[in-house]
Amino acid sequence: MAQAATTPLSDALSDPVQMGWMQGFPPPPDKRITQPDSNFFSFPKLRWSVCHIRELVPTAQVSRGLGAPTPLPYALDESIDALTFTPLNSTSTMTWQDALAANYTDGVLILHQGRIVYEKYRGCLDETGQHAAMSMTKSLTGLLAEILVAEGRLNDNARVSSLVPELQGSAFADATVRQVMDMTTSLAYSENYADPNADIWTYSAAANPLPKPAGYTGPNGYFEYLQTVHKADQHGQQFGYKTVNTDTLGWILSKVTEKDVATLLSERIWQRMGAEQDAYMTVDGIGTPFAGGGLSAGLRDLGRIGLLMLQEGSINGTRLFPDTVVERIRAGANKQHFAQAGYKTLEGGSYRSMWWVLHNPNGAFAARGVHGQTIYIDPTAEMVIVRLASYPSAKNASIDPTSLPAYQAVADYLMKAEQTP
Amino acid sequence: MAQAATTPLSDALSDPVQMGWMQGFPPPPDKRITQPDSNFFSFPKLRWSVCHIRELVPTAQVSRGLGAPTPLPYALDESIDALTFTPLNSTSTMTWQDALAANYTDGVLILHQGRIVYEKYRGCLDETGQHAAMSMTKSLTGLLAEILVAEGRLNDNARVSSLVPELQGSAFADATVRQVMDMTTSLAYSENYADPNADIWTYSAAANPLPKPAGYTGPNGYFEYLQTVHKADQHGQQFGYKTVNTDTLGWILSKVTEKDVATLLSERIWQRMGAEQDAYMTVDGIGTPFAGGGLSAGLRDLGRIGLLMLQEGSINGTRLFPDTVVERIRAGANKQHFAQAGYKTLEGGSYRSMWWVLHNPNGAFAARGVHGQTIYIDPTAEMVIVRLASYPSAKNASIDPTSLPAYQAVADYLMKAEQTP
Repeated sequence: MAQAATTPLSDALSDPVQMGWMQGFPPPPDKRITQPDSNFFSFPKLRWSVCHIRELVPTAQVSRGLGAPTPLPYALDESIDALTFTPLNSTSTMTWQDALAANYTDGVLILHQGRIVYEKYRGCLDETGQHAAMSMTKSLTGLLAEILVAEGRLNDNARVSSLVPELQGSAFADATVRQVMDMTTSLAYSENYADPNADIWTYSAAANPLPKPAGYTGPNGYFEYLQTVHKADQHGQQFGYKTVNTDTLGWILSKVTEKDVATLLSERIWQRMGAEQDAYMTVDGIGTPFAGGGLSAGLRDLGRIGLLMLQEGSINGTRLFPDTVVERIRAGANKQHFAQAGYKTLEGGSYRSMWWVLHNPNGAFAARGVHGQTIYIDPTAEMVIVRLASYPSAKNASIDPTSLPAYQAVADYLMKAEQTP
Repeated sequence: MAQAATTPLSDALSDPVQMGWMQGFPPPPDKRITQPDSNFFSFPKLRWSVCHIRELVPTAQVSRGLGAPTPLPYALDESIDALTFTPLNSTSTMTWQDALAANYTDGVLILHQGRIVYEKYRGCLDETGQHAAMSMTKSLTGLLAEILVAEGRLNDNARVSSLVPELQGSAFADATVRQVMDMTTSLAYSENYADPNADIWTYSAAANPLPKPAGYTGPNGYFEYLQTVHKADQHGQQFGYKTVNTDTLGWILSKVTEKDVATLLSERIWQRMGAEQDAYMTVDGIGTPFAGGGLSAGLRDLGRIGLLMLQEGSINGTRLFPDTVVERIRAGANKQHFAQAGYKTLEGGSYRSMWWVLHNPNGAFAARGVHGQTIYIDPTAEMVIVRLASYPSAKNASIDPTSLPAYQAVADYLMKAEQTP
């Protein structure tokens, strides 16, 4: 029953319960997912691991505080499942429901005008679980930075080395905070997950909280690694998606506030948005939260993040930060800088403060993470979609064709439904 | 400024903020507490580590669920600080307040008739933190077992091997579940933390979720280790405090319920007692929660556990389990079996279902953990005391002299105050 390397197991066949991962006391050896030797982040193990990160590595709490959560209101609409759309580069249509399996969806939430109209849990996730947010973590780090900018506590024109002297000898030294926030730094650094020699793997080795292998002489942790990154060309010329920018931004935030990113995220957002669950962040070997990708959180809590962005900084009648924060993010960045990076599924877009801005007619913008994670905010349709997934391959370019048109179809439907009550 | 080996730093001098542990971005190398080489569980690092276990090792969530917490009512009594008592083996008196520093207290909560009369956070702990419960975890595992016994789902007269066939060749095979619950198994196993060759350290190596050292050929995880424990003499003859009993009990619970102990603790207790915070448990390399000592939890949530025991299974007007569960625990076990173990500070006591029963005039019983952890329940005084600490040495025999008489003094005071309103 060998699978061809190019044909991963289907959504149904790779379901983690179906696969039997980590079931039994003890689980049979061939059904265990462990650190460090079982490659827990590879498909199909990934379908279990995305809900169990904390059981595999050390993590820092993102506390929701101690008060009562503020429940999200419901107005469920069962007709969403039957909505159809045409995937990118396709001629036949697909239903919303079919797209769930096509995308190896673990959880999906749709909010319209602040109410939950659709909610589904699949795979490893349920409503009490937390799912890896992957690079959506970046958007929260970027949001925290924009908040500090709006408060005048962080000057986005400052040189990074003026805030983090340890980065003096690195590529980041003469970059501005804004260039880091918008990822227009020019770094000699490859983040091609498909290339086993890419710098991202050296970075991962430095960041791994487990003991370093015998003879390891590389950097230990994010902060040491960032100091080793070299400059490629002039900063500010084009967008280049590199996670190290976000960890540099996290370091900047910690230098400015004297708090780690997990604590900031708790104090500024999680404790104030009516969250139902604590979230958490993975940490490196010296306790630094992974600002570029370490968050795990509940589906509805990520929905609250989306609402907060849709509602320009307010939720449950409470303002968490100035509306200018969202306005600046939503406006996007330089489209020419973005175009040079060649994102075929996001043509005409830009990347601003670690958020993906589509510049489409509805003004949508999104947090996005590998393997299919998204918080998609459509201000025109007053819609938020959160989708958590464990798609076999990392690249969203494979996932967007059955996702972005689906989100637009839901937006169109919700706007139409609104007009014909 | 070298300290003599026998004179640990004082409470004030070992305060983790004062010591500077893990402060700064990054913390200076000599102020880091990391896995695996810095011996994070040794004093004075312990004073930081007890509040940060999850940042050092993988953990499983003990979910509080998603509802609103049920706040505990307050009736604070400032005069408790000045209460005096005479420490065991002492002639001079000490105040309650002075006992806090003497015990390296991180958090203490006193409940009287269901209301908080005293609450203090010190050291690494605050009200949003979780502190290592250490062996108090055992009492929760024992409580879960008693609940299943009361429900008829677990026969405490059954042989262990009938429930866990994997233990057939081990010391536990012909022990009854009750002997495991009361720790009257006879095991060739040493748990003297002061002895570097004690079996507890082999056990710890097996349980460590980090990768095994090169050449390691020992057992991996709790379940494999338990199978290697040999019998010493006949079971049921005397009490012998050995953590492996609790992990065997945890395995039994999982075989019976098909759920791990963290999930059981969440479903049976944490989701139903109005908890404010999730708790968590450390796990071994195959994801097994440490039933014998892995819990970390918030101070007030441990107070809720105490209330639940004081109120014989009910809290906030909800019954979580039959009152017979607490009655059976509180009644204690064979005092002769206990006496042979030679606990000088607990003479006349017994150990029942992983709870310490004092058999004192007030009928007090307690969960206890090394380095000074306790949930102390005094049914006569309608009092619960939770004390979380990071005392330099593990043994409670060093901590009891300034603890047990202090608890009695508070009980006496509360009963007297009640009579003279």
